[in-house]
Amino acid sequence: MVRAAIIGASGYTGLDSIEIIARHPQAEVTYLTALPEECGRADKVFGRLKGKCDLDIEPLDMNKLTELADVVLCCLPHKVSMGFVPKLLGAGLKVIDFSADYRIKDIKIYEQYYQVEHTDTVNLENAVYGLPELFRDQIKGKNLIANPGCFPTGMLLAIAPLLKEGLVETNSIINNAVTGTSGAGKNPSSTFHYPNMNENIFAYGIGVHRHMPEMEQVASAVAGQDVTVLFQPHVGPFDRGILSTVYCQPKKEMSNGKLAELYNDFYKNEQMVQVCVGSPKVKDVAETNYCHVYATTAKGKIIGFSAIDNLVKGASGQAIQNMNIIFDMEETLGLR
Amino acid sequence: MVRAAIIGASGYTGLDSIEIIARHPQAEVTYLTALPEECGRADKVFGRLKGKCDLDIEPLDMNKLTELADVVLCCLPHKVSMGFVPKLLGAGLKVIDFSADYRIKDIKIYEQYYQVEHTDTVNLENAVYGLPELFRDQIKGKNLIANPGCFPTGMLLAIAPLLKEGLVETNSIINNAVTGTSGAGKNPSSTFHYPNMNENIFAYGIGVHRHMPEMEQVASAVAGQDVTVLFQPHVGPFDRGILSTVYCQPKKEMSNGKLAELYNDFYKNEQMVQVCVGSPKVKDVAETNYCHVYATTAKGKIIGFSAIDNLVKGASGQAIQNMNIIFDMEETLGLR
Amino acid sequence: MVRAAIIGASGYTGLDSIEIIARHPQAEVTYLTALPEECGRADKVFGRLKGKCDLDIEPLDMNKLTELADVVLCCLPHKVSMGFVPKLLGAGLKVIDFSADYRIKDIKIYEQYYQVEHTDTVNLENAVYGLPELFRDQIKGKNLIANPGCFPTGMLLAIAPLLKEGLVETNSIINNAVTGTSGAGKNPSSTFHYPNMNENIFAYGIGVHRHMPEMEQVASAVAGQDVTVLFQPHVGPFDRGILSTVYCQPKKEMSNGKLAELYNDFYKNEQMVQVCVGSPKVKDVAETNYCHVYATTAKGKIIGFSAIDNLVKGASGQAIQNMNIIFDMEETLGLR
Amino acid sequence: MVRAAIIGASGYTGLDSIEIIARHPQAEVTYLTALPEECGRADKVFGRLKGKCDLDIEPLDMNKLTELADVVLCCLPHKVSMGFVPKLLGAGLKVIDFSADYRIKDIKIYEQYYQVEHTDTVNLENAVYGLPELFRDQIKGKNLIANPGCFPTGMLLAIAPLLKEGLVETNSIINNAVTGTSGAGKNPSSTFHYPNMNENIFAYGIGVHRHMPEMEQVASAVAGQDVTVLFQPHVGPFDRGILSTVYCQPKKEMSNGKLAELYNDFYKNEQMVQVCVGSPKVKDVAETNYCHVYATTAKGKIIGFSAIDNLVKGASGQAIQNMNIIFDMEETLGLR
Repeated sequence: MVRAAIIGASGYTGLDSIEIIARHPQAEVTYLTALPEECGRADKVFGRLKGKCDLDIEPLDMNKLTELADVVLCCLPHKVSMGFVPKLLGAGLKVIDFSADYRIKDIKIYEQYYQVEHTDTVNLENAVYGLPELFRDQIKGKNLIANPGCFPTGMLLAIAPLLKEGLVETNSIINNAVTGTSGAGKNPSSTFHYPNMNENIFAYGIGVHRHMPEMEQVASAVAGQDVTVLFQPHVGPFDRGILSTVYCQPKKEMSNGKLAELYNDFYKNEQMVQVCVGSPKVKDVAETNYCHVYATTAKGKIIGFSAIDNLVKGASGQAIQNMNIIFDMEETLGLR
Repeated sequence: MVRAAIIGASGYTGLDSIEIIARHPQAEVTYLTALPEECGRADKVFGRLKGKCDLDIEPLDMNKLTELADVVLCCLPHKVSMGFVPKLLGAGLKVIDFSADYRIKDIKIYEQYYQVEHTDTVNLENAVYGLPELFRDQIKGKNLIANPGCFPTGMLLAIAPLLKEGLVETNSIINNAVTGTSGAGKNPSSTFHYPNMNENIFAYGIGVHRHMPEMEQVASAVAGQDVTVLFQPHVGPFDRGILSTVYCQPKKEMSNGKLAELYNDFYKNEQMVQVCVGSPKVKDVAETNYCHVYATTAKGKIIGFSAIDNLVKGASGQAIQNMNIIFDMEETLGLR
Repeated sequence: MVRAAIIGASGYTGLDSIEIIARHPQAEVTYLTALPEECGRADKVFGRLKGKCDLDIEPLDMNKLTELADVVLCCLPHKVSMGFVPKLLGAGLKVIDFSADYRIKDIKIYEQYYQVEHTDTVNLENAVYGLPELFRDQIKGKNLIANPGCFPTGMLLAIAPLLKEGLVETNSIINNAVTGTSGAGKNPSSTFHYPNMNENIFAYGIGVHRHMPEMEQVASAVAGQDVTVLFQPHVGPFDRGILSTVYCQPKKEMSNGKLAELYNDFYKNEQMVQVCVGSPKVKDVAETNYCHVYATTAKGKIIGFSAIDNLVKGASGQAIQNMNIIFDMEETLGLR
Repeated sequence: MVRAAIIGASGYTGLDSIEIIARHPQAEVTYLTALPEECGRADKVFGRLKGKCDLDIEPLDMNKLTELADVVLCCLPHKVSMGFVPKLLGAGLKVIDFSADYRIKDIKIYEQYYQVEHTDTVNLENAVYGLPELFRDQIKGKNLIANPGCFPTGMLLAIAPLLKEGLVETNSIINNAVTGTSGAGKNPSSTFHYPNMNENIFAYGIGVHRHMPEMEQVASAVAGQDVTVLFQPHVGPFDRGILSTVYCQPKKEMSNGKLAELYNDFYKNEQMVQVCVGSPKVKDVAETNYCHVYATTAKGKIIGFSAIDNLVKGASGQAIQNMNIIFDMEETLGLR
């Protein structure tokens, strides 16, 4: 059994990680930590955990952690994470980090978007971007995985075949995405107060969302050349899921038949990515680690669509997929 | 034109009052006040008001209020209201008060449920409970109206014909109600955080809800004898509406035909109460001042149902219905 | 009092039209018709109408119609409408038609998208596209108004200032829109079955939506040159509203200050269009005839946003705005 | 591996059964059947099954069924089921039946509520009511399990400790329940059309719901004396879950402490029933097989609450819990 600790266990990604591992036949959650004011029995913090998890969430104790865990799912926020990860790695633990701290390779861009100095550039360099469908070989056997952002996961899987094959203009990409509300995290706010958010939909982070440079970096890596992305997120009145609608200009005209062939071929060995005929629906992937994709031509453009659960394939599920890979287990254990 | 001021205008009942009066042909909103930290242009506080209201919400200035208004909709919270109402009345204004401060006639019960000393017992005595369908004659010409609570409005209209005619055992009444989330007010909380409240339903205030004594007092007044009520509220994943399902033990068996006749007769002149054939639906009354009612027998009991919009017939709409009455205007102006 | 008949009154646009006119101080609904199998008392067909409308919905009788009405809101479906409109006009009635039959001026495009021969080309030529903010002068005094589609209304108001001033590349426009479910009409289907649609969002009509040529025709008229639009609709889990996110390539760089100035100036006399600072929200316009717009630059592009209620500004409300204009009443009567 | 066939696999309970067994380490789905018009690849019928199930749903072939399966989850509707079950049992298969056909022991009551003659009274007599927490010992080793209704499951678990100990008046029970919409099944209807059901809540089946006699029969069996129940269901705007609020008259006064002790003790060995402190919430049990319960006193009455997922603990999950028991596997396999 792989023994997993979760640091920052009191948020939604912590909850989902606990629930997924509770169904995992070869892993178990052994240690949960959070800030002192968020501690307590896990099933009091989250009523859903009654009968599934009888651990306490405790303030972090490095000795206990080292003794109890093989791997850490580090669910700390951006900027905080890089203060802990070096210690975790130093203690010989494998780390899957949910924050952006180890995703952006260009420190200047990181520091511009996150407004803080990066304090762990050594590990940043060694970290692998944990999107298994694109970087599986690099993930195997690694100690530090930068678990991807939810919006980048959605966009990248929606158009990876096009990028990889160099079929679209790399400066033409517009990613219009709609996320469910769980992406906002568990802290109440006026925006996500039920009577304000229900029956509502609107755009946010216009022109400045932090996931934009992450998308560009990884898309560029996939394409082998610089890619720019205009990313416009929206939030809608549902819990889980991101629908990405990605507009691209093809370099030359492509038939829908060719597009379907390209996608089916690209993802043919991927359990977690399913190619649809017609628009993906977020409800078909909610509470699962699947990504549904579809691409089609429309008025001279190509539209790539994807649907994921932002908390699962966009966070906790993908982390456990990465965990399965680095411990050489079957990749989809606990995830179907 | 009747000139209305709204005190405590920065909450949901303030918003609805402004929107309703904006459609009222013989009234206008002339002055809006709130705590200093909640002030600002009304249409910045509430995006819905763009194009409908160009007033500022300001800290209360009694001189300005007296000069600008004929009537005050007092949307202050319980306990706070009774600190202001004597001044408003003293300045010659008519007052429709949304709080509980002038609803509960028995000071001991008020003080037990609200845990505070009542400081305005003189006006309490003169206040009229503003449920026009039951107390229209007393409302006319009054200066201080205690606008009813949303749950009591729902329950009372659901079973008033039974109470009035003395047809049910007065110790048998169970009011099981489900409210939408707008009843929680506009302050964010973990319970009403969208990802927590969405797709959820649960009970609250078990055995202790403050609307219980209000229901009992008014039901007793209608019945002409002591009535006890077991009231159990629930909250469900929708914005507006209260569905009340009220179980009673009839004194003697009644046919459904007789029940229908009783209800149709009781409400035959009431524009705002409509008798249904089958369960009322909250969506049929959402955003309106209507109350839909229905009663039927089931396994030896009678079930009275009602649906209202908690913010309209349960608060702002009923207040304006009261305003129409005390200013001798057509009772439903602005409300259809 | 303007006397309005509604033909095809048994659908959602009929319901909204009845509700709006019920609040209109200078108009009244006098006659309602539908297919025989959809007839009955209006307040039985729609529970919301209890107490608001005591008319029957009847099979159409031209004599009765002519006698009772000054204007017809024709809520018939595409293709059916053009079978009735000539008779209505012939009887001397003014007609506001909700279908697409009189919107598309190019018969070949109409026939390609709607797969039917156009049988009333004479009136088609005279019909005016009823978007008051863009074509108010042509609407005045006309007998036949083609009430705009909901998606075109949203897109056109989102970028009209840019089109009018010739500021964007006319072949660069991508209209990504999300509509609520009421746009699907009242007939049940598997897609809109609650357990399928709830917590879901997806794209539809990919590359082929019928509103695309309407958008292009009217956008071209506004711009004074040919405009092409890639329109991609989505449907999300809410009742009312369309959020349009319209991407355009500016001809030359523009500051956000200039954009704001342009929009504020363009709409400065428009009561029903409000310029926001930040993304419009559908909830701020739901159940109203308002359109909220905003434009900003992002990564070298301009994004124009708008929010409307698809059934009000996108259908029934706009029809009544048109009715107010052609009868020379105050344009916003009944609509605030 | 236990090999499970699902008959009537094209509905929501079929979908959930497939998804649960896909996560079950010791069972697999081997055969799926439905009416000819509902056949096709399972993952085309349900987009959620992409990557999880590559079987076809086929018209029933008894030979194939007998060859491929050890147990049948029979998801056929009431009245249809009893036409198939005798053949399935005759072929040596174990059967877990989702319909009401084998739940109601009193044929007269069955025939009154379901308006059809019962045609399989032999097997009816031998069938066991599959509510493991109450009848586990009788379930073990049986060939025919009548899988309980969703509402009866919710009510029985909410008050079983009270019934068992004879603490409440057996003629005083009122079960007020609210279900999510998935209980309506997958066939579209006007009532469950998204724009009608969203933001709505109402009562139905007033006084006549078919689950009432099932509740009374099983409650009587638990109590050891005749129990009557007034059951009033409601449906609310969410997908999954039933919240049961059950009012009872205690025979003598009980403290909340005693109640808590009683419930904790009664369920202390039950993995799938969790005793809460405060109201259960349907969201805490959605998509799981758990039942959360709570009981408290209020104004001289006892209120028992429970929350379940109507499709899981109320149908497919409970069926698989029963399957685990009759095949002597760990009872919660696949269900946590």
